[in-house]
Parts: sequence; structure tokens; C-alpha cells
Amino acid sequence: MFAKNDSVRGAAMAALRERLGNDAVLDREEQLDHYGRTTLPSAPLPAAVVLGKTKNDVVACVEIAKQFGLHLYPISGGKNWGLGSACPTTEGQIVLDLSGMNRILEVNEELGYAVLEPGVTQGQLYQHLKDKNIDLWLDATGAGPDATIIGNLMERGYGHTPNGDRFHNSCAYEVILADGTILETGWAHNKESRVSNLSKTGLGPSIDGLFTQSNLGIVVRATIWLIPKPECFTAYAFRLESQDDLCATIDALRPLRSLGVINSVVHLANDYRVISSHRRFPHDQLSGEDALPESIRSKFREELGLGKWNVLGGIYGTKASVAGVRKSLKKSLKRITRPIFIDDKKLSLFDFVYRYSSWVPPVKKLKAKVESGRSAISLLKGEPVRDHLGGSGWRSKLTWEQKPTDPLDRNDGVIWITPLVPLTSSACNEFLNLIEPIFERHGFEPLLTFVMISERVMCCPTTICYNREDESETVRANACYQDLLKHSMNHGFPPYRAGIQTITSLANNDPYWNFVARLKGELDPKKLIAPGRYARS
Amino acid sequence: MFAKNDSVRGAAMAALRERLGNDAVLDREEQLDHYGRTTLPSAPLPAAVVLGKTKNDVVACVEIAKQFGLHLYPISGGKNWGLGSACPTTEGQIVLDLSGMNRILEVNEELGYAVLEPGVTQGQLYQHLKDKNIDLWLDATGAGPDATIIGNLMERGYGHTPNGDRFHNSCAYEVILADGTILETGWAHNKESRVSNLSKTGLGPSIDGLFTQSNLGIVVRATIWLIPKPECFTAYAFRLESQDDLCATIDALRPLRSLGVINSVVHLANDYRVISSHRRFPHDQLSGEDALPESIRSKFREELGLGKWNVLGGIYGTKASVAGVRKSLKKSLKRITRPIFIDDKKLSLFDFVYRYSSWVPPVKKLKAKVESGRSAISLLKGEPVRDHLGGSGWRSKLTWEQKPTDPLDRNDGVIWITPLVPLTSSACNEFLNLIEPIFERHGFEPLLTFVMISERVMCCPTTICYNREDESETVRANACYQDLLKHSMNHGFPPYRAGIQTITSLANNDPYWNFVARLKGELDPKKLIAPGRYARS
Repeated sequence: MFAKNDSVRGAAMAALRERLGNDAVLDREEQLDHYGRTTLPSAPLPAAVVLGKTKNDVVACVEIAKQFGLHLYPISGGKNWGLGSACPTTEGQIVLDLSGMNRILEVNEELGYAVLEPGVTQGQLYQHLKDKNIDLWLDATGAGPDATIIGNLMERGYGHTPNGDRFHNSCAYEVILADGTILETGWAHNKESRVSNLSKTGLGPSIDGLFTQSNLGIVVRATIWLIPKPECFTAYAFRLESQDDLCATIDALRPLRSLGVINSVVHLANDYRVISSHRRFPHDQLSGEDALPESIRSKFREELGLGKWNVLGGIYGTKASVAGVRKSLKKSLKRITRPIFIDDKKLSLFDFVYRYSSWVPPVKKLKAKVESGRSAISLLKGEPVRDHLGGSGWRSKLTWEQKPTDPLDRNDGVIWITPLVPLTSSACNEFLNLIEPIFERHGFEPLLTFVMISERVMCCPTTICYNREDESETVRANACYQDLLKHSMNHGFPPYRAGIQTITSLANNDPYWNFVARLKGELDPKKLIAPGRYARS
Repeated sequence: MFAKNDSVRGAAMAALRERLGNDAVLDREEQLDHYGRTTLPSAPLPAAVVLGKTKNDVVACVEIAKQFGLHLYPISGGKNWGLGSACPTTEGQIVLDLSGMNRILEVNEELGYAVLEPGVTQGQLYQHLKDKNIDLWLDATGAGPDATIIGNLMERGYGHTPNGDRFHNSCAYEVILADGTILETGWAHNKESRVSNLSKTGLGPSIDGLFTQSNLGIVVRATIWLIPKPECFTAYAFRLESQDDLCATIDALRPLRSLGVINSVVHLANDYRVISSHRRFPHDQLSGEDALPESIRSKFREELGLGKWNVLGGIYGTKASVAGVRKSLKKSLKRITRPIFIDDKKLSLFDFVYRYSSWVPPVKKLKAKVESGRSAISLLKGEPVRDHLGGSGWRSKLTWEQKPTDPLDRNDGVIWITPLVPLTSSACNEFLNLIEPIFERHGFEPLLTFVMISERVMCCPTTICYNREDESETVRANACYQDLLKHSMNHGFPPYRAGIQTITSLANNDPYWNFVARLKGELDPKKLIAPGRYARS
């Protein structure tokens, strides 16, 4: 929009600088380029970046946006890799970066909640709980310590613990609307209420959901629920050697999941997904036009001690309840496999053994596996470890040793798609038979995880990793993505969230999206806030 | 509104009759009186009643409402006793009765869900599952077999099982808007989707919540989630002899509830609440101006084998997991009390013993307790038993034997208020110390249940039972209600739902209710649908 009228641009920038301070407005080319980095084949650059530090800053931005007809694109940390990172949906939008609005406003140990601003990262909250000796565990995703909690919540993301469904385990949002109104959801708008941080809903229509996957307002505060440090925790893990066993496992776990015997999120990752976090595509041996041949794939699998599918989950409870769940898990899986249970005691025992016998070959061999297990277990216990981020660099040409913490620093090529799949063996089979050949056709490895996010449905984060420095590979990756999206939609496996390149096309003319457009028309007729984000453009 | 213009009334009635059929429109005085019955001190009469049998009927009603400026007040079964039953919020509204729209559209045993129309009752779905040998359990409330499932869902009610949070365990609503639009939520608007009945959310803003405790649309279909019949089920029950023990229990159970070791709804009812379902206020001995004296109260308690507080919950799982939870419960409660575990095996054993030794005094004495326990256990297993409905007649002058199934048939006086209380001993103490004296001041018995609806908060359905045939008692009941509401609001214990006499006063001028009013203005500017229902009037 600025291209049309540079004097408006100047006035708008001046107004923003006046209200928020000189340093709060970034518009130098290298600054915009930095914010515009993407793991996608391409993404729009921001027209400018504004750093919001307080609620009042956000209100000021909305007011100035109204005055000058600006479009604000709010981000919390911009770590939405594979789906758009910090980039807006279209050119000409001003990124409103709330990463500096990062106060932990309250933590209540007795009732298990934290009140957060949007910039608070997983690592920050983890450290806070540790430093203050607060016996609560957060729910962490694999996105590492620098990803924000509210950013993921706004996308209705999923973690690992019993509170893995982020949206369900949050409440009391504070929202700035396009007209500058400050709105609080649930019972939080009632100043006397003592249940504002405890109850998802208040009286009257429940409106939390309106502000997730949405451009109807800017969320500047939310309460997230934490679990008490359990009396007992154990992880379970097992390998599966075939798609049949994967499917059998899904049917075996479903009754446990539906009754809440398993009440946390189970992850079932294929070999590619795990390999990608520990190895690199052998560019020296392969051109990159074909997917990894079975010979190398199975070599990696063997080196890393992987199955074709690798299952991981946690059991959180009392000693007695965890023992009961362990027994049930073993029984349910007995025709398929034998799960391994790993807890801190077992890990310490290994450390002790290793200290005195690290030279014994089997112990030495076990070491790598134990370390990889330790990191996975940390994640299940709410520690936002970095290890799982490495996977995005699978096809990068940087060597494994050169690994900065942010996939954008490595110029990793990653496109994410997140189809939902019914929690049945038949759906799982059908889904795999649909999408694996698409990857093959385009010459990529299907990096897949089935995530049992609820009692009835899995999401399947499906990752296309590509070498972003290879132009033709980038074109192929994009084609692969389009195919995956089209076929998964057509076959009834729609995504649970979407990337900036796609949202607009999915928001079609049906009554649901018309309804969303009506709400937008009422709340933000000038589309000041993130046009095209989970809405028709 | 009709008073002003009788010719409009005639034309509107004729239009409704033409579209829906002659029998679908009720406006004879005795018909209106029947729909207008209430357990509250008073309630508005409907201006007419329309029986909607299909989705198209509802669309037709909305169209005619628009044409003639009618106000439609949708009900599913009208069993919202204590909060308004079938009565509209104000005079002049036309009740749109959807109880005849009662098809069970689908039941999926593998994935555990049922797709229902609004008129489907708890009893109907229970019978359907039984008749078809479907191994799923529904979540039943104490409102008996004739209460509808969607009616309770729209109020965001709570039951007993792991799916006790009705709102969270439902999806894919079909909604008729005031302009006749048919809208589907979640992924249900996408015809290819195979996850519509499985995923709470779709892509984009989640709008389910907008239509609960709401007048923004008319829900004509919803999917509710059911649990698989568990491999193992046991109920637990125990009595507590003091408020201190009650508070200690709440603190003891909180960690189990927060970790999901207990993953269903626990009910802690005071003696009055249980007595009311088994005895009648002794009108022959007392004037009704004072609450029951301690002497009679303790006599009833002894006869019925009650504690001052009586706790009931269910454990749903596998043999091993249930054993683990039992052990944890016993351990957590060991300084307070010893829970009793009751399952079908124990009940059968008792029946066997009783058959051969019913003459033995202790066995004979146990019989009544076992029967009351059996009914409670049925409820935990999803059987919508009638027994808990009796309580509403506590102060009625009808004898215990004359008990029709609907509190309205007995002219029972019942006012319900549903404050939310943080799940801590201190909040529980403070709440009781606040509200028990209010009951005493007004001369009523506090019929209370603390319901652990979630990991962090309880609701406390608080019942004022009064003799509706005694005018001064009715006036006192109303004053008691007003006092309870005011004080619980002022002290930070706001209600999770509200009765028709109150909603409007709670919907004040703060940004939340302004927001709701904006949505109403956009979606239903003429207030065709239920004006004043969870909205400012």
C-alpha cells in the first residue's frame, strides 16, 4: 500500500515513532529482510516492523493504523517455521512484533496456572519455574526454548503432557480489538471474580475461540494451565517395524486414550522424522532429485536404533496410577511389541554404570540412544529442549556441526502441513497410502509424525524438507506441498492449522467462512489487523 | 408485542400454521399456561408455542419472525428447572419447541460419538445404545431421562463421567442464524472432511462457544462424544463429618484431579441435598418459616446413613488402571477417611446375600443404602435415573408417594444458583461461611453440592427449595436468591450459568457484554432470537 503514497508512509512512520519511541520502528531494508526470512519457498516482506512492549503500545498501533489505513500483522516470536515464521500473509503489512512484551504476570502453584504476555517463551517460563522452585510443569512443544507459548496457543497447537491441547488448557484472554477496545474473555472481565484464571468459560457466549487462528483481535495476555509436578512420571517408548504394526498400535491405544487411561499426547514418528534430527541428507552421494534410497535409510535406522515407526509418550500420575497405566499399556500392546519404560531413576542408573564401564562396547553403543531418549523425556517433562529443531535442516548443505538455533539462520527449507486423521487403523492406512506416493513422486522423504492429540483424532505434522539453496528443488518442494494439500483435503484429511501461503485459498465461500467474514466486517471493517490471516483476503 | 396489534398476531399465526401445519402452533390459554409453568417464584408466559420438527421448520420460523417482527424463544425440552424451565426471558416471545426434532442421526461405536437433534433426551439415547448393543456410555446428568442432551449442552452443563464437561466433549454444531443461514462449526462445513465429528475445531476461528449460553443462533444438530464401555468401572463413596474434613478432602483430591488420575467429575453433596431426594420437609411439625432444626436433620442423616458431606465419583478404565487409581485415592484420603468402592460385582453379591438373608436385621438395614447407591452408580455409568429429581419437591406439601416425574407437575418451588468456587480448601470454607448464613437468615435449608467440574474449579449448584403454594415463603425464597446471587458475585464466586430472571441484570455495560451486543447487532439486529437470553435486553 505504501508504494502508492510515500508521504502517507512517512507520516505513519512518524506517528508510530512518536507514540512508541524511535527504536520501536524498524524500516531499514536489512531489518525488513531479517523479519522476512522464511523456510517456505517464498513469503511476503513486511512493509515495516513495530516493536510493541506494552498493552498501550498495541492500542496506540491500532489507533495509528486506523488513522493511516495501515495493516498490522501481530506476531509473538515469529517462530512459526514451516507455516510462515514472522512473515505476513501479503505484502504491505506492518509486522507488530510483541516478543518484547514478555512478562510472566503471575504463577499460581496451588492451582496450577501462569498468566503470560505474548512474548513469553517456553524457555523463559521453564527457567522461571526452575529458578523459583515452583513444582509445576509446563507443556512444551518440540519448537525449542525460543518459541513463545501464546504464539503456539493462538494457532491451537499441541504439546506432550496431559495439557497438550493448548487451547483447551488456557483461558482469560485479554484482546485488543481494531477499534482499540480492551476485551477480557471468560470471567476475566469481572473484577471481583476469583475464578477468572480457573474457568475456561464465563457467563454468556464463550468467545475465546474467536481469537485463535484468527485476525479478529490481538491477544495481549492469556492464562495457561500447568500440571503439578507428578509424584511419579515415566516415559514409554517402542519401535514398530511395519505399517501394519503401526495401525495395530493405533487400534490398541484408542480405547486407552478414549477412557483417559492414557491422558497425554502420544507421538508416533516415522524413521525419516527421527533420522532428520540426527543425520543429514548425504548430498555427497545423492543429487537431491530423488528421495533417500532404502539402503541408506536402513543404515541410518540401524545406526540410530530406530524402527520404521517410533512411539513415545509419558505417564503422569501417582506411583500407583502410573503402575496401573504401565500394566495396561503392556497388556494392550502385547501382540504387537513390548514398550520400554524409562524414568529418571533408570537414567541415573545408566549414568552410574556408564561412569565405570564406558569402555564396554554394549554400554558405549547404548550411550547415544540413552542421550536421545533423555532429551525426549525432558520434552515430555516440559523442558523445551532444542534437539528436535535440528530436523528442519535435513536437506540443508550446512554440515551437522554448523547448527545455529533457529532454522532461519541456516536458511533451512521446510514446509509444514498438518492434516487431521481419524484415530483408526483404516484411516491411518489410507492416509499413508495416499501421501507417501506423493512424496515419492516429487523426490522427497516423507517426514511424518502421527500425534494422538485427542480421544478421537490424530494430527499428522507432515514435513517437506528441501534444500532452499537449490532453485529447482525449491520449485519441486512447492509442487509437492500443493499436491499434498489438495489430496489430503479431497480425501477428507483437512489440516488443523495452515501456513500463510494457503489460508486464503482454504477460506472459501461456504457459510462458515462467510460468517467469519461477517464478524470481521463488524469488528474490523478496515481490515487493520492481519488481513488474510485465517480469513478470505 | 401482540397486545399492540392483534391483526399482526393473527397474520403471523396464520403464516406459521401455513408453513408448519395447523397442529404445530399452540396458542390456547391452557396450552400457554402449560408451557409457562415454572419452579421459580414467577416467569413470563409465552405468547404462543410453535412445534418445530425439522431444520426447515426452524428456517421457516426465522423467516416468518423476520416478516412479522416476532421473537422466537427456542427450547429443546424445557427441563431447565430452577433456571426457567421452558419459559422465555420476557413476555411476548414465541416459544419454539424443538422437542419433536428428536432423531439420533448417527452413532459411531468405533470412535465414540453420537450425532443428535436437539430434542433427543438422555433416556432416548441411553435406550438406543442399550437396544442396539452399542458398547458406549453417555454422560448423564441428574435431570433424569426426559431432559434433552443438547439443551444441557447449550447451557454448558456438567455430568459425571470423563466426558462430564459437555461443551468440551461436543463438536460440529449446525446452527440456524436469524437471517436463515445454515452454518456448521468445526470442520463440519467441509463436505469431504472425515474428522467433522472427531475434532472440536476446524480451521480458522473456533465459533462453537458463540452458540452456547447464547441467543446468536439456533442449534439444530450437534455431535456429542461418548466413552467406550470401560473394561473396568468402580464407584467410590465416602462420608465426611465436618466442614474441616470437606476442605481437607478438596485439597487431597486436587493433585489427583489436576494430573488426571481422577479424570471424571466428583460430586460432594451436603446432607440436605441427599435428604431432599429421600424425605420431605416435615410440614406437620414445622411452620416452614425456619429451616429444619438440627434434631430432625441429624435424625434423617442417621436414617439414611449420611455424613454431613457425601462424596461420590467413578473410576473408568482398565482393571489395572482402576486398581492404581483406587490405591491412590485411599492413600490421598487416609488421614481423612476410608473410601468405599462399589462395583457391579459387589452389588450382585449383595443381591445374592439378600435373597437368602433379607430377614437378618443388618442385611435388611443395608438394603436401602444399597439401593440408593445402586441408583447413584447407574448415573455414573450413564443411565439417566429419575431418583435425583425427587429432591426438588423437598418443601412441597404433596406426600412422598405422589411423585410425578416432572417437578412442574408437582408445582415444586426450586431456584437454582450455580456459583463457581476455586478448587481449594480456603475458597470452599469462605464460600460456605458466606452462603450458609444467608440461607439461615431467610429460613431455608442450603441444599448444596460441590462439583469438581475441572482441574481447578468447582461449581456449587445451590438449591433453594420452597413451598410454592405458600405466598410468603415464595417471597422469602426470592429474597434469599437475590441475596445469594449478590453476595456470591461480590465475593468473587460468579455463576457458571444463570436463570431467566437474572441473565439480563448480569449482562452489564462492560466490554465483554458490549462485544456480545455487537455480535447480536450484526447477526440478529431485530432480535428475532431469544432477546435477553444471555444478553442485555
